[in-house]
Amino acid sequence: MNQRIVVIGANAAGAKAASKAKRSNPEAEVVLIDRGTFISYGACGIPYYVSDAVPRIKELMSTMAGVVRDSDFFRKVKGVTVRTNTEVTSIDRAAKSLELQDRVSGERSRLSYHRLVLATGSAPVVPKLPGVTLKGIATVKTLEDAELLRSHALPGAAACILGAGLIGLETAEALCQKGMRVTLLELKEQVLPGVLDPELAVKVERQLTRAGVEVRTGCRVTGFTGQEQVEKVMVDGAELPADLVILATGVVPNVELARAAGLEIGSTGALAVDAGMYTSDPDILACGDCCQTTHRVTGKGVFLPMGSTANKQGRVAGINAVGGEARFGGVNGTSIVRVFELTAGKTGLTEAEALAHGFSVETVLSPAPDKAHFFPGAKPILLKLVAEQGTGKLLGLQAVGEGEVAKRLDAAALAIGLGATVEQLAQADLAYAPPYSAAMDNLIVAADIMKNKLVGIARGFAPQEVKRKLDQGEQFILLDVRSPAEFQEVGIEGATLVPLGALRDRLSELPRDQEIIAFCKISLRGYEAQQILNGAGFTKAGFLDGGILAWPYELRGPLGS
Amino acid sequence: MNQRIVVIGANAAGAKAASKAKRSNPEAEVVLIDRGTFISYGACGIPYYVSDAVPRIKELMSTMAGVVRDSDFFRKVKGVTVRTNTEVTSIDRAAKSLELQDRVSGERSRLSYHRLVLATGSAPVVPKLPGVTLKGIATVKTLEDAELLRSHALPGAAACILGAGLIGLETAEALCQKGMRVTLLELKEQVLPGVLDPELAVKVERQLTRAGVEVRTGCRVTGFTGQEQVEKVMVDGAELPADLVILATGVVPNVELARAAGLEIGSTGALAVDAGMYTSDPDILACGDCCQTTHRVTGKGVFLPMGSTANKQGRVAGINAVGGEARFGGVNGTSIVRVFELTAGKTGLTEAEALAHGFSVETVLSPAPDKAHFFPGAKPILLKLVAEQGTGKLLGLQAVGEGEVAKRLDAAALAIGLGATVEQLAQADLAYAPPYSAAMDNLIVAADIMKNKLVGIARGFAPQEVKRKLDQGEQFILLDVRSPAEFQEVGIEGATLVPLGALRDRLSELPRDQEIIAFCKISLRGYEAQQILNGAGFTKAGFLDGGILAWPYELRGPLGS
Ligand SMILES: Cc1cc2nc3c(=O)[nH]c(=O)nc-3n(C[C@H](O)[C@H](O)[C@H](O)COP(=O)(O)OP(=O)(O)OC[C@H]3O[C@@H](n4cnc5c(N)ncnc54)[C@H](O)[C@@H]3O)c2cc1C
Ligand SMILES: Cc1cc2nc3c(=O)[nH]c(=O)nc-3n(C[C@H](O)[C@H](O)[C@H](O)COP(=O)(O)OP(=O)(O)OC[C@H]3O[C@@H](n4cnc5c(N)ncnc54)[C@H](O)[C@@H]3O)c2cc1C
Ligand SMILES: CC(C)(COP(=O)(O)OP(=O)(O)OC[C@H]1O[C@@H](n2cnc3c(N)ncnc32)[C@H](O)[C@@H]1OP(=O)(O)O)[C@@H](O)C(=O)NCCC(=O)NCCS
Ligand SMILES: CC(C)(COP(=O)(O)OP(=O)(O)OC[C@H]1O[C@@H](n2cnc3c(N)ncnc32)[C@H](O)[C@@H]1OP(=O)(O)O)[C@@H](O)C(=O)NCCC(=O)NCCS
Ligand SMILES: [Ca+2]
Ligand SMILES: [Ca+2]
Repeated sequence: MNQRIVVIGANAAGAKAASKAKRSNPEAEVVLIDRGTFISYGACGIPYYVSDAVPRIKELMSTMAGVVRDSDFFRKVKGVTVRTNTEVTSIDRAAKSLELQDRVSGERSRLSYHRLVLATGSAPVVPKLPGVTLKGIATVKTLEDAELLRSHALPGAAACILGAGLIGLETAEALCQKGMRVTLLELKEQVLPGVLDPELAVKVERQLTRAGVEVRTGCRVTGFTGQEQVEKVMVDGAELPADLVILATGVVPNVELARAAGLEIGSTGALAVDAGMYTSDPDILACGDCCQTTHRVTGKGVFLPMGSTANKQGRVAGINAVGGEARFGGVNGTSIVRVFELTAGKTGLTEAEALAHGFSVETVLSPAPDKAHFFPGAKPILLKLVAEQGTGKLLGLQAVGEGEVAKRLDAAALAIGLGATVEQLAQADLAYAPPYSAAMDNLIVAADIMKNKLVGIARGFAPQEVKRKLDQGEQFILLDVRSPAEFQEVGIEGATLVPLGALRDRLSELPRDQEIIAFCKISLRGYEAQQILNGAGFTKAGFLDGGILAWPYELRGPLGS
Repeated sequence: MNQRIVVIGANAAGAKAASKAKRSNPEAEVVLIDRGTFISYGACGIPYYVSDAVPRIKELMSTMAGVVRDSDFFRKVKGVTVRTNTEVTSIDRAAKSLELQDRVSGERSRLSYHRLVLATGSAPVVPKLPGVTLKGIATVKTLEDAELLRSHALPGAAACILGAGLIGLETAEALCQKGMRVTLLELKEQVLPGVLDPELAVKVERQLTRAGVEVRTGCRVTGFTGQEQVEKVMVDGAELPADLVILATGVVPNVELARAAGLEIGSTGALAVDAGMYTSDPDILACGDCCQTTHRVTGKGVFLPMGSTANKQGRVAGINAVGGEARFGGVNGTSIVRVFELTAGKTGLTEAEALAHGFSVETVLSPAPDKAHFFPGAKPILLKLVAEQGTGKLLGLQAVGEGEVAKRLDAAALAIGLGATVEQLAQADLAYAPPYSAAMDNLIVAADIMKNKLVGIARGFAPQEVKRKLDQGEQFILLDVRSPAEFQEVGIEGATLVPLGALRDRLSELPRDQEIIAFCKISLRGYEAQQILNGAGFTKAGFLDGGILAWPYELRGPLGS
């Protein structure tokens, strides 16, 4: 008899594993099982279906050629047998057989396997709060959720979203675009915790506010009230009206089946697998959201459920399930999200993460146009680069802006994934023409600034540090080296103006014994001021990282807000 | 006395070297000399000034903050002394002094140096053809050229551009946008020779034609006629009317000064420098367009004059000129160009280049949407990946399309620059969300196809090969596995339709002893057909690389052209 490969879970990871297993060994019988009705759909597209950007739900389940990926498709095209509405209720590893239950008829049956692939995915966290089972409280995960959201997204109605992570933000945008009054509630003190350091998250929070989303960070939801249907969300004592509540506080891996079968669970609570996607049972592989994976920068196990990863892992599991030899090389923790006009994302570690992992870090804030600054349509992006002191190893890049952010993240993803140093990033031969970047791309500039910092040529002060100095009334000179016209328009309260072009002539006005922190719009001139001051024998000069454009606090002047 | 650093040439490389030298050693006297009037300008922006996209020429010479980078600016801000309209006419290496001539007064003088930096750049090739000195025949290099072009770019007038390289194409776009009737004349049989392999260049040629540019490849210009002003261009016997002629047939490095001083010239005719940007004289460095550099993939010397490279090299030369220790790591030969709606570019080697360098290559053509295919605004891009057989080392990526091409080039530039393999590219943790890519980014897909080819799972046929088979009437089956509806719309003449979904049931219709080359819109289904056929024991099955979307020849049907 031919070998039978059974795959549990027929979404990104499982459908990929099954398809690839069959391609890799056409003799094998491949069975793909899912307890749901819909399979092989782009969950990532749900927010865009909710917002009407994607007009028909079928598009989330169709191939590029417009064919719906249903059971028939998998049978005819991929040679894979699909069983939907079928739950696997237990795994008998000794007998190498599964217990199944038909979700429609309730009927139970058994199915044996030679090799088993677990692709059971993840489930949204549903907080155990009073009233959480009321109608109108939804998660964003399945196509059923998508239909519910779209039907509840009524203009003028109030939506409360719990969680300002990737899915919370995408959903906020979608509901806002449908005309809802959207409130975003986040326990942490910032939006996109885990993705951005706080000073970058501020940019995203401002964008949300500008777009009409009410953002409440550092706030705890304690419950929900209403008759059958949710009416109010209880937040820190107050009550917020809500016609629709979205739970977007993260997902947990579906590991019950694996756990019950005695498979090893990793430190993160997700399934432990090796680089070949093997679980602790050599006949059982796993892939996608149900798995723990390895972070390439830290070498540690992480639970970072992403559709990109699910597909790559599914391919590896599919190959290995039929005896091949593929390996999955870990992740950078890359993520990206569109938030109205902004794009935000990261690859590698944030500063907070790097510190938590014990790295001694140096950081750079570099805001600059995404194209040649003279090119029409150039838009600002803010990069934050994190590197290791001593080795100069790249640890992470964060990027936020209206301009071309994804490009810089992907290039950095390659660099970080390959273990590159800052010097290697600075040497990258990136594609330059005015419609695409400056002659020195934002990444090259960020790398150069980092090199300057690592060798002590550039002495940057983080905005947080400068703000603390200002708030505590420390003795120092905050030196604005922009032009008088720029100074007029917008500035930082407490700064002294000496335009860069006049600095060499006006050095006598500045005290040599005090800390001088220079800045401009982006701190390029701020850095040059530091160099001029150093050259003139001032030893306590430095600059404000990222200047005005990266300043996460209030600004002075008519353009300040 | 303080050391004096003299930099010859005050554009990208020289201005960068001078600025960085002064920052690196504020004690040094830095003198920046140029024979021209304008310095430190973005030559790359000229086409966009000609087209009016950049309204004022000043913008090409201004900082991000809007300050014009003139002599005054360099003195006040950078601490650099600039002498414009001053030509260096000879270098006395023994005496470490220069002979200068004032271009306005004609006066000669001498200037001594401790360290000299040559940043003399490049000059457009002016072909020695009869009539080439007529008025209205221009190059595209300086701001003077820019003004001349803009003033001659009159709606309805005829322009002939010699050379379909990067600058020729950008100029064609600019003049077309100004309403000129533009003819592009190229000696080679394709546009963008050296940047794209022919089957990708076809896409660019079609775009040019669509936009109204008349493209003539494989044609030789033999001269120009007219009274004072050019009137006609003589091409292969015929005469083309021309009110404006643009010479865009490449640039040559300005090395006369260096050659006369006995400095070593490299194999490409540009100045030989080491990784520290030192010439053969330890007191003379060089950077930018006048230099030869090392190609990271081949390890060979190349002359690839780019603004991006000039800036990076200038920085290295500036540091080292004052005794620092920086190194320039070579180039990938990356380039990018906007051609109306299209973007085209490459990093690393083309197939033709790789073959010429003796690599045994494998190639992939992968056309796919640049975003999730269901996401509104997704646009196709065509990637061509080139890798080395055996090692799986990445050699090059070419990309053409309306969609986000630059991102894929930059990510590949990092990978290729770091010496990555196809497997490492396939493992990249790229930033995925539907507005930015598919779950498996185009690069990952291209890498997977390449892996399949390298191990012999995927058997691709280049379009050129299939075309040859068709033209020579070879016995083989060209199997279209798309849907009947797709088949109706557009196709390749001579193909047989068996939709992929029906293939498993209709295998008996196909001959087992003949070559079967399957294809679809992009050849994803073509590849799947090959797998199904292989699985059923057909040994001579393969697919057409890149399918319909990459087919560079005529198509059949109403959507064919
Ligand atoms: C709204 C939203 C937006 C997202 N956006 C992005 C994004 O922009 N980028 C990105 O990379 N990722 C994104 N993701 C994440 C991405 O969708 C997931 O990583 C991906 O779907 C994981 O695929 P999977 O197959 O591993 O798991 P899942 O998609 O969770 O599928 C698991 C399947 O297993 C089935 N199953 C589970 N247990 C059993 C059982 N016992 N028996 C039978 N069947 C079972 C389930 O029914 C389910 O169909 C997003 C997710 C959501 C919800
Ligand atoms: C239209 C156009 C578009 C371009 N587009 C791009 C692009 O998209 N991307 C890209 O990367 N590159 C592009 N480039 C190339 C880029 O502009 C050059 O690589 C860059 O300008 C090189 O800088 P450089 O300082 O080395 O040389 P140059 O710009 O050539 O400057 C050399 C300077 O040296 C001076 N000089 C020479 N000899 C002497 C002497 N004996 N005495 C005194 N002075 C002297 C000259 O007057 C000149 O100012 C483009 C170029 C052009 C013309
Ligand atoms: C689509 C899905 C069923 C996987 O099936 P699959 O057959 O492996 O994938 P595709 O249909 O895309 O085919 C890809 C195959 O074609 C190959 N291919 C793609 N383009 C090609 C081309 N132009 N030429 C040749 N081969 C090509 C790929 O290399 C791959 O083959 P391989 O895995 O053997 O290397 C699974 O990914 C899925 O369910 N996706 C939807 C859900 C999802 O991804 N969600 C997460 C994000 S929202
Ligand atoms: C501009 C030019 C004069 C170079 O001068 P420069 O002083 O080296 O360059 P900039 O003014 O951009 O300043 C860059 C410096 O600020 C630093 N910097 C940039 N942004 C910064 C920020 N946000 N914070 C701190 N430092 C910053 C850079 O690291 C660099 O310093 P370094 O070289 O010491 O590392 C030269 O590149 C030039 O003439 N350019 C125009 C022509 C051209 O590039 N043409 C080719 C393409 S069309
Ligand atoms: Ca708060
Ligand atoms: Ca021709």
